[in-house]
Amino acid sequence: METHPPLTDRECAELDAHWRALNYLAAGQLYLRDNPLLREELRPEHVKPRLLGHWGTCPGLGLVYTHLNRVIGLRDLDALCVWGPGHGAPAVLAGSWLEGTFGEVWPDVGRDEAGMARLFGGFSFPGGLPSHTAPVVPGSIQEGGELGYSLAHAYGAAFDNPDLLVVCVVGDGEAETGPLAASWHSNKFLDPVRDGAVLPVLHLNGYKIANPTVLSRLPEGELDALLRGHGHEPLYVTAEPDTPAPHVHRAMAAALDEALERIGAARRAAREEGSAERPRWPAIVLRTPKGWTGPHDVDGTPVVGTWRSHQIPLARVREEPEHLRALERWLRSYRPEELFDGDGRPRPEVLACVPRGERRLGANPHANGGRLRRSLPLPDPAAFAVPVEKPGASSHEPTRVLGGMLRRLLEDTEERRDFRLMAPDEAESNRLGEVFEATPRAWQGATLETDRNLGPHGRVMEVLSEHLCQGWLEGYTLTGRHGLFTSYEGFATIVASMVTQHAKWLQSAREVPWRAAIPGLNHLLTSHVWRQDHNGFSHQDPGFVDHVLNKSPDVVRVYLPPDANTLLYTADHVLRTTDVVNVVVAGKQPCFDWLGPEEARAHCARGVGIWEWAGTERPDGEPDVVLACAGDVPTQETLAAASLLRDRLPELAVRVVNVVDLTRLTPRSRHPHGLPEAEFDAVFTRDRPVIFAYHGYPWLIHRLTYRHAGHERMHVRGYRESGATTTPFDMVLRNDMDRYRLVMDVVDRVPGLAVRAAGLRQEMQDVRNRHHRWVREHGTDLPEVAEWRWPG
Amino acid sequence: METHPPLTDRECAELDAHWRALNYLAAGQLYLRDNPLLREELRPEHVKPRLLGHWGTCPGLGLVYTHLNRVIGLRDLDALCVWGPGHGAPAVLAGSWLEGTFGEVWPDVGRDEAGMARLFGGFSFPGGLPSHTAPVVPGSIQEGGELGYSLAHAYGAAFDNPDLLVVCVVGDGEAETGPLAASWHSNKFLDPVRDGAVLPVLHLNGYKIANPTVLSRLPEGELDALLRGHGHEPLYVTAEPDTPAPHVHRAMAAALDEALERIGAARRAAREEGSAERPRWPAIVLRTPKGWTGPHDVDGTPVVGTWRSHQIPLARVREEPEHLRALERWLRSYRPEELFDGDGRPRPEVLACVPRGERRLGANPHANGGRLRRSLPLPDPAAFAVPVEKPGASSHEPTRVLGGMLRRLLEDTEERRDFRLMAPDEAESNRLGEVFEATPRAWQGATLETDRNLGPHGRVMEVLSEHLCQGWLEGYTLTGRHGLFTSYEGFATIVASMVTQHAKWLQSAREVPWRAAIPGLNHLLTSHVWRQDHNGFSHQDPGFVDHVLNKSPDVVRVYLPPDANTLLYTADHVLRTTDVVNVVVAGKQPCFDWLGPEEARAHCARGVGIWEWAGTERPDGEPDVVLACAGDVPTQETLAAASLLRDRLPELAVRVVNVVDLTRLTPRSRHPHGLPEAEFDAVFTRDRPVIFAYHGYPWLIHRLTYRHAGHERMHVRGYRESGATTTPFDMVLRNDMDRYRLVMDVVDRVPGLAVRAAGLRQEMQDVRNRHHRWVREHGTDLPEVAEWRWPG
Repeated sequence: METHPPLTDRECAELDAHWRALNYLAAGQLYLRDNPLLREELRPEHVKPRLLGHWGTCPGLGLVYTHLNRVIGLRDLDALCVWGPGHGAPAVLAGSWLEGTFGEVWPDVGRDEAGMARLFGGFSFPGGLPSHTAPVVPGSIQEGGELGYSLAHAYGAAFDNPDLLVVCVVGDGEAETGPLAASWHSNKFLDPVRDGAVLPVLHLNGYKIANPTVLSRLPEGELDALLRGHGHEPLYVTAEPDTPAPHVHRAMAAALDEALERIGAARRAAREEGSAERPRWPAIVLRTPKGWTGPHDVDGTPVVGTWRSHQIPLARVREEPEHLRALERWLRSYRPEELFDGDGRPRPEVLACVPRGERRLGANPHANGGRLRRSLPLPDPAAFAVPVEKPGASSHEPTRVLGGMLRRLLEDTEERRDFRLMAPDEAESNRLGEVFEATPRAWQGATLETDRNLGPHGRVMEVLSEHLCQGWLEGYTLTGRHGLFTSYEGFATIVASMVTQHAKWLQSAREVPWRAAIPGLNHLLTSHVWRQDHNGFSHQDPGFVDHVLNKSPDVVRVYLPPDANTLLYTADHVLRTTDVVNVVVAGKQPCFDWLGPEEARAHCARGVGIWEWAGTERPDGEPDVVLACAGDVPTQETLAAASLLRDRLPELAVRVVNVVDLTRLTPRSRHPHGLPEAEFDAVFTRDRPVIFAYHGYPWLIHRLTYRHAGHERMHVRGYRESGATTTPFDMVLRNDMDRYRLVMDVVDRVPGLAVRAAGLRQEMQDVRNRHHRWVREHGTDLPEVAEWRWPG
Repeated sequence: METHPPLTDRECAELDAHWRALNYLAAGQLYLRDNPLLREELRPEHVKPRLLGHWGTCPGLGLVYTHLNRVIGLRDLDALCVWGPGHGAPAVLAGSWLEGTFGEVWPDVGRDEAGMARLFGGFSFPGGLPSHTAPVVPGSIQEGGELGYSLAHAYGAAFDNPDLLVVCVVGDGEAETGPLAASWHSNKFLDPVRDGAVLPVLHLNGYKIANPTVLSRLPEGELDALLRGHGHEPLYVTAEPDTPAPHVHRAMAAALDEALERIGAARRAAREEGSAERPRWPAIVLRTPKGWTGPHDVDGTPVVGTWRSHQIPLARVREEPEHLRALERWLRSYRPEELFDGDGRPRPEVLACVPRGERRLGANPHANGGRLRRSLPLPDPAAFAVPVEKPGASSHEPTRVLGGMLRRLLEDTEERRDFRLMAPDEAESNRLGEVFEATPRAWQGATLETDRNLGPHGRVMEVLSEHLCQGWLEGYTLTGRHGLFTSYEGFATIVASMVTQHAKWLQSAREVPWRAAIPGLNHLLTSHVWRQDHNGFSHQDPGFVDHVLNKSPDVVRVYLPPDANTLLYTADHVLRTTDVVNVVVAGKQPCFDWLGPEEARAHCARGVGIWEWAGTERPDGEPDVVLACAGDVPTQETLAAASLLRDRLPELAVRVVNVVDLTRLTPRSRHPHGLPEAEFDAVFTRDRPVIFAYHGYPWLIHRLTYRHAGHERMHVRGYRESGATTTPFDMVLRNDMDRYRLVMDVVDRVPGLAVRAAGLRQEMQDVRNRHHRWVREHGTDLPEVAEWRWPG
């Protein structure tokens, strides 16, 4: 890579032709439903009846597309672009149509007049092309509706792709969001040796919907300081409405050349000269007028360079002849007849800058990451399982046991480097620390002697930002690699809206035939609601699961393994899935081992099962009551209740059911994992009382099961926002999910027991009262609770 | 205000005594359950059986507390401090205990030996004091569990409090979060004339749980550039483990004096000299060792200055005599006998720096904002209501109508300045633009001629960050003022976890007798799921309501006004509430006017009501079917279905029920707004089919109503993640909530109709199929749908 001389006039002209074509195509998408080449004078009926779309950011994005084409071709770059600014899809669609990739994946929309007309007509048409990048757009890995995630996605794409350049256009609107603001520091985690490069292009477009942007109005010195403070060396490209196009092209080309040379130098320093210093990566600040090249003014009011060009600069085109004429002047200003031949095909000079084959931005395989996905070399969970001679005789910390398996997986992917663990400074706290035997935390900053487990090539990503963890992992899986994000359960909701967007991406991508399936997005929620002894109420929120289960059943999965071995098999399963969001909830505190490896495997495969050994059913006939549970703490309380019942009401036929896969509870018609009705009835009976102890908000179980027969006999206990800094048992007691309460529920709900077992019921209430006093006096759980074990 | 000379030795000694007392008290909270003054040699039984808490950040926070005391007293400051770092409560509790405020609000925990013992014993004890600041802590407005909101809260507190100084200690861990990273730009919205000042103290404590922090490891030049890029002039205070205390105190005092003088100068420039330039506000960078003043090493491993001092530096105190001796040496290093008299009362020199009365940080009334709350001068909604001669004959954009009322409210609070509107660049887009007739958007940046409605003293806050809008509003209401946050519905989930934390604050604060009620936190969600014609699938998420309704029923309220007038009365109601989170969902698109002002008032007061004029009930007997609806689009589809039924099945007795207050659907035993059973049955009947069209995810209605009689006859239609860039009617059709589908549901569910009305059912399906084809061909809704109006 060497310094490139300034553009020749011819190169300039070719780039300008490409850019004008992009602008023409973008404007055409907003306005035209016919007469796409302006063969005839524009008439009202050529214009769409509903003008929907956003012009403001398109010309700036087009400029980036054009110039990326140039450097990709010139330098044979393996490059991807993440398009952050909202509603920039027309420019990106134009770019992929022009380079041919759009027509290759959507053959109806090829590079000719008919294809152009379909591109124009499909934009913002019902069921057609959206206003922001989305799975239908070749080259995109960014669901561009909710702003703020572009830079995190870009870094996620760059990790472990050492030859990849990820350009990320950051909108100055989205730059005001929290997640984007935090993302700038991602460069402290980017390894110049093993990772690709990220080149941020901060697009100062000036205005959002109705307001100026904060960054566009910073004094130059502040903006420069800000970028340097974020560890970048800024390069500036500025265009005013009247800057001649060749000036802009020369400036943009020079900035990109300079940036790429600096990136090359940083790579050489790290890879060849062994430099351990974090590079000051370049960043480009591209300042362009909003709505650039569009109408200067409309009805005497300025439009270019103002918020008025955010959406449709000329709104009354079908109604007002003067607007129609202005639109025609505007479109003809790009000189379409120079850009497209008589059949609507782009002329050779327009395409001169376009790279070939998979180098085209719309064809880079990383942007269709499923094409690059390889299944993980998963170890056999049995090798890490804890031995269980009989249920409940021993206990382990489930996440610590999982840590052993993840360590092996990290070791076995050391060469492939396609698996990463993300955690907001919680891998150790969540007891996954054994992973550091395999790989350190990624860290490019200064290190001190007192640091542990930091390294420039590490594959555990720890930063105190759930948004970054999630955004990086999304970018990583969207480009075909695998990962796991572990978080305190209570704070997973921080990324709830990001999960919404990713789930929507996955759901839409399933309908895009040329998109290959990408690895599942895996969340492990631990440090959960029931065990926040010193964190208390603020750390207690099991609602992430509720949020996720609102999304399309095609793409969401939720698992609550009850012990260490079931966690292993659950993890093994989710790491094999594609095109889904998986949520696994598991504790990090010591938890009874209920199932041996083989039983755990079988139980996870079924997702729900009767634990015969725990119940007191007779082989003939149905049970009197079903005790169901989902989650580690509910399972413990349920088994404790079952043992109390076995002891005190031995004649009662109790069935114990454990649920690992929560979506098994939904009817099959509503979720692909749902149990068929007959199976549901076989497990839960059709009419016997079910006392269900659930890990989270109890009404979630009702909403999953209300369509089943006899839903009214379903009685659910769970978390009800009663929390504090308190002991484990006090937590379940405060929320009425404790073993004694479950026994009382059985007495209350099994016909005939209310009288017969009134004494037992009172006794249960007495223990609860005794505990209440005990915990306030001693600060610990009642010894009989703390020391309880399964009697089997 | 003038430059203060360096500290005298005596001042230094007094400050140091206060700081040592804070450190002693903080360490005591972590460890001691007896022998609080160390009158006797420390024995294992003096130590708590469970050591829960976090030492790492406490000494640094204590230093801030001590030195704020000094400058508050010296300069008679009206000052508040927001404590951002996680788990810093022991230092803050120590500060308020020492200054006497803790004992004033919690009289059992006074400033003597018994009180000290109770402070120590209550910390991290079940039901006692939490490890992070919370409502029980005097002087706090920050629920410190989930990190990242301190700086936004600080700015919220400072807005419209021109004499207030809000110091905000920003943890270097929380500084990695997105919301905090975005908050630095809040200074672009802070008016030096009408607002107070915010002084950030970036506490570089070095480590998080197990990792170094990003900011603490930045090269000095980068950190300096970062703060300057954020618009601050940084001042540095650095302490190493071996820096002599007087050096630290002199440096901290000098930095605070300098900062306050710069703030004073900025205020004078703006207030007296009329400067319009945004001040470069000072910020202090306080670099201290993690676990400072604690044990240097434990068992030969370094502790001070490392992540090992994050929680309990000496963990095995009860078991290992050497740890016990080390703890005693550590505690005695603060020389408690010099700090407290024989009765455990702080000695005069310890208290020399403590300000008096309400100047104390724990007593500042702004930190118990309900004490300063005044009811808003709300205008009569009738004055802004639209006239409705008969239902459905006209239509209005509900939020635009609301804009008129908000404009008046902004005008009427121009002097009081205790109401603000927050929006992520959406006030205009959400059609509330009339508010700009009363006040501009707050903006301290450069302005251009093309800008509109920007001004330095504006009270509409627009920034493209839902986190900032929410955080500012939380800080504003926590200090006793009122506001409304309007957001696109689809992106409200961005702040779901913040709502969790605020709801938890409110729920806890209700149990704190000395906390006065604060204004409700009001969310207006608009640009909702059903009308995303050009935004599409990514903008469609009605799940914020589901999230909010998982929180304690004491503090959450949800309203779905069906038209403009009901929105006015709903807004009027929520702006009167205290100690709750209100969510109002209302459209911005033209919507039929159903109720006149007086009817709207009465309907909102009831929260749910039968719309007799829309049904075909006979006065005698029950209806054959209930058509229920909640939300503007569901109401329209339901009324269209009702008119179809009236026309086609005139003998069918149809009841139409509209729900404004969603929590009316829950049983009274589960929510204070819940309908008593008899009233619920009177409205919905006990056994007739109910076809419920709901704005959001349909299962929410099931989860609210499943305890009511005959829940199985409840059939709910709503949003089911079927969305796209499409027309309004195509959206409801795709999700099976359209009028024709509702009629089909009636046919399917009313006994006897299936055969009798088979033709009608088929006809309905035919229209749906016709629409399906039409929209794909024309891109618009079927004319008969688009032109439908209520025939009444």
